[in-house]
Amino acid sequence: MGNKLVGNAIVFTQGGPTAVINASWVGVVEGLRDAPADVLTGIWGSLHGIDGVLNEEFVDLRAQSQKTLDAVSRTPATALGTTRHKPNAEDNQKMLAVFKKYNIRYVFGAGGNDTSESLDLINDAAKASGYDLRMFHVCKTVDCDLMENDHTCGYGSAARFVANAFRGADLDNKAFGGIYLGVCMGRHAGFLTAAAALRRNEIADSGPHLVYVPERAFSVEQFVKDVEAVYKQHGRAVIAVSEGIEDKAHTPILQLLSSDKLEADSHGNVQLSGTGALADALVEQLKKHLEGNGIVKKLRARGDTFGYLQRSFTDLSSADREEALQVGWTAAQEALRGEFTDGSIAIQRASSNPYRAKFVRVPLKAVAGKTRHLPDEFINAAGNNVTEQFIAWGLPLIGENPLIGELDLSKKVAKK
Amino acid sequence: MGNKLVGNAIVFTQGGPTAVINASWVGVVEGLRDAPADVLTGIWGSLHGIDGVLNEEFVDLRAQSQKTLDAVSRTPATALGTTRHKPNAEDNQKMLAVFKKYNIRYVFGAGGNDTSESLDLINDAAKASGYDLRMFHVCKTVDCDLMENDHTCGYGSAARFVANAFRGADLDNKAFGGIYLGVCMGRHAGFLTAAAALRRNEIADSGPHLVYVPERAFSVEQFVKDVEAVYKQHGRAVIAVSEGIEDKAHTPILQLLSSDKLEADSHGNVQLSGTGALADALVEQLKKHLEGNGIVKKLRARGDTFGYLQRSFTDLSSADREEALQVGWTAAQEALRGEFTDGSIAIQRASSNPYRAKFVRVPLKAVAGKTRHLPDEFINAAGNNVTEQFIAWGLPLIGENPLIGELDLSKKVAKK
Repeated sequence: MGNKLVGNAIVFTQGGPTAVINASWVGVVEGLRDAPADVLTGIWGSLHGIDGVLNEEFVDLRAQSQKTLDAVSRTPATALGTTRHKPNAEDNQKMLAVFKKYNIRYVFGAGGNDTSESLDLINDAAKASGYDLRMFHVCKTVDCDLMENDHTCGYGSAARFVANAFRGADLDNKAFGGIYLGVCMGRHAGFLTAAAALRRNEIADSGPHLVYVPERAFSVEQFVKDVEAVYKQHGRAVIAVSEGIEDKAHTPILQLLSSDKLEADSHGNVQLSGTGALADALVEQLKKHLEGNGIVKKLRARGDTFGYLQRSFTDLSSADREEALQVGWTAAQEALRGEFTDGSIAIQRASSNPYRAKFVRVPLKAVAGKTRHLPDEFINAAGNNVTEQFIAWGLPLIGENPLIGELDLSKKVAKK
Repeated sequence: MGNKLVGNAIVFTQGGPTAVINASWVGVVEGLRDAPADVLTGIWGSLHGIDGVLNEEFVDLRAQSQKTLDAVSRTPATALGTTRHKPNAEDNQKMLAVFKKYNIRYVFGAGGNDTSESLDLINDAAKASGYDLRMFHVCKTVDCDLMENDHTCGYGSAARFVANAFRGADLDNKAFGGIYLGVCMGRHAGFLTAAAALRRNEIADSGPHLVYVPERAFSVEQFVKDVEAVYKQHGRAVIAVSEGIEDKAHTPILQLLSSDKLEADSHGNVQLSGTGALADALVEQLKKHLEGNGIVKKLRARGDTFGYLQRSFTDLSSADREEALQVGWTAAQEALRGEFTDGSIAIQRASSNPYRAKFVRVPLKAVAGKTRHLPDEFINAAGNNVTEQFIAWGLPLIGENPLIGELDLSKKVAKK
C-alpha cells in the first residue's frame, strides 16, 4: 500500500441497474476489507447514488453478514438504490462538504458513461479544493458502450437474456411461420441487439435472420425489402431491432413512425424503453408492405419489446457475475494501493482463445461521457446482420447455455 | 394390453407452443416404444398439427436418436411445428381418409381446449364411420385453463418466467422508485398473471403490489385509485395485469383504451399478444391521474409487455418438464392399454404438502372447448391481488429458483 490515506469509504450505484451491479459493489466491499481498520474506518453504501451523499444517507456495509452480501451479489438490480441525478457545480460543492464532514476519503461509483462523467467532475472539484480523495469508477452498463472496455459488467447477463429470448422466440416462430420482431435496449450502441444472434444455431433457416443496430442508418424502405427477401425464402422471419435505430438524418425511427410525444431524462436522453410503440409501428409497416404487395394475404406478425427484463431478469451469466466481483475488487485494491488517486476499472480481453479477461485501471477522463460503438467488423456489409467475429467475441460472455435440440426433419415417412 | 389394435401411431402439436410441449410428445414416443413392433408398426410425427395429416406430411420418430429426442425434450416450442387450424366437417372426413390410407390407429394431440375440441370432433367422425381409433389429448397451455386439471403442461415454465421477471423488475423498480407495470398472457384465465406474485418476498414493500386478472371486472377508475394508494405508501408500485382484462360489460380494456383495430384468429379470438398497446395505454392513464391530481410532478412510469417470451424462453421449470414427459407417457400407455378408446390426460394434485402430482385419464368431452378459471380463493376480496393459497399452490410448479438477497437497510450510519 502506498501513502496511508485514513478515512471512510463509500460505494454507490448510479443510472440504470444491471443484473450484476450488486456483484460489482460487493466486490468493492470485499476488496476494501483487506485494509487495516485503522486505515479504513468505515465501509458504507450511499443510498440512491449521489443522492445518498447529498442527503447523508449511508448504510454500514461492514454490519452486513457475508451470507447477505453473497446473496445480494447474485441478485439483479441494486440493493443500494440508484438515481439518474446528474450533479451540477453546486451539488459537487455540497458533496465535497459531506466528504469532509464524514472524513470520506475513498469513493467508488458503479455506473456507465454518464456516471463516469459525474465522478470526474466531483473528483476535479475535490482536487481544486486540495481535498485528498480516491475516486474510482466501476464499469457498468448493459449497453456495453464504454470506451477502453472490451465489454462491461452487466452486458453478459443482459446479452444472455436477449440471446436465450431469441433462441426460444425463433423456435416458436419456426413452429408457426410468419414474422417475429423483438426490440432490444441500446440507444447508441448495438451490442445488446447484436446479442440476439449469439445462440443462432447451425441449421440454415435459424434466426434471427436480420439484426438492425444504431451504428447503421435505418431505412424503413430497405427494412421491408430485407424482410420480404427472408420471408420469401423461409416462409418466416425473425428480426432483432435496437430501440435506438435512426435514419440518415439521425431522427429516431420511433419518432418518425409515431405521433406521440416522447419523454426525456435529465441527461436529455429521449425515453425509448418502457413503451412497445416501436415494435408495433415496425410490425405495422411489414403488414402494409407484405400484404399490400400481395406477397401474403394475411401476415402473421408479432412484435415484442424486451424492455426492463433485459437488465433485471434473475438468470445471470455466471461469467458476468464473476467479472463484476473482480472489477469491484480491483477498484478497491487500486484505491488502497494509492499509485493512482483516481481511475476507472475496465475489462479488457487478455486472450481470445481461450477466453481470458484482465481488469485494468484507466484514467477517468478516458471513459467519462464517451460512447463506444460496435466495431465495423462485427456488422455485415449490408448493415442488417452481425458477423461471425461478433459471435466469437460475445459467446464467452453469456455463461453456460441451456441445451437446445432440433429434430431431423429429413426422416420423412414416404407418401402413399 | 387389451385388444391388440395393430397400426401406426401419430403425434402432433396444435395451437400456441409452450416451453415443454416437446417434452409432452417425446413422452408419448417413449411410452409407445413399450409396444411390440408387430402391434405398433410406426411412430410418426405429423408436421404442423392437423395440417400434417391433411397434407400427409409425417416424420419418422423411431428414426430419431434418443440423444436428439432428449435434447428436443429440453427445448421450448414444438419441433413438429404447429397450427391454429380448426378442422371443419370436411377436414375431419379428409383426415379419416388419411388415417385409413396409412392405417393410423393411434392419434395423440398436444394442445389446449381448442385442440381437445378438435380431437373430439375428429374422434366422433371416426366412431360414426366405424373406424377403430385411439384418440388421446395431452394437456398443454401456458394459460392453465383446462377443466379437470390442477394445472397444465407448459404453465410451470411460463409461470417461472413471469415470477422471475417480476422478481427482477420489482428490485429494479425499488432501486429507482416510480411505477412498473407488466402485461402477462391470459385471455380468460388469470393463472399466468397471478404467477407474478409467486416470488414476492417477505419484505413488506415487495412487489407486485397489485395483480389484475380477467376473472374480475376491471375498472380504470378503481385501478388508478389502487395504484395511487400503493404509490403514496411506498413511493413506488409494481403492477401485474392480464392482457385479457375486461370491464363489467365484458369489453376488453385494450379495446376500450385503444383506437386501433384488433386482429382475430380462426377461433374468433381477438389478438391480445404481440402488441405493447395495453401496457402503454394503462401507463398513460396512471400518468394522467397521478400527475393530474398533483400527487407527483413527473411520474416515472414504465410498462412492459412480456409477450411471446413467456411461452418460449429457454429457462424451463424442471418440474414442468418432468410432468410433461409423464403426461405424454401416460397418454401412450393408456392408448396401448385400450380400456378407453379416447381421453385426455390431466394433471391432478395427489398431495399438497409435500407436493405430488398424478396423471389421470379423463373423458375428452370433459375438457373439450371449456375454460377453467382461477378459483375464488386464489383472488383477494378487493379483486386486485392474489392470496396466500395461490402462492402455496403455485410455488411447487415453477422449479428451483435463483437465489435473491436483500440488504439490511436498517444498519444506517448515524447522521452527524
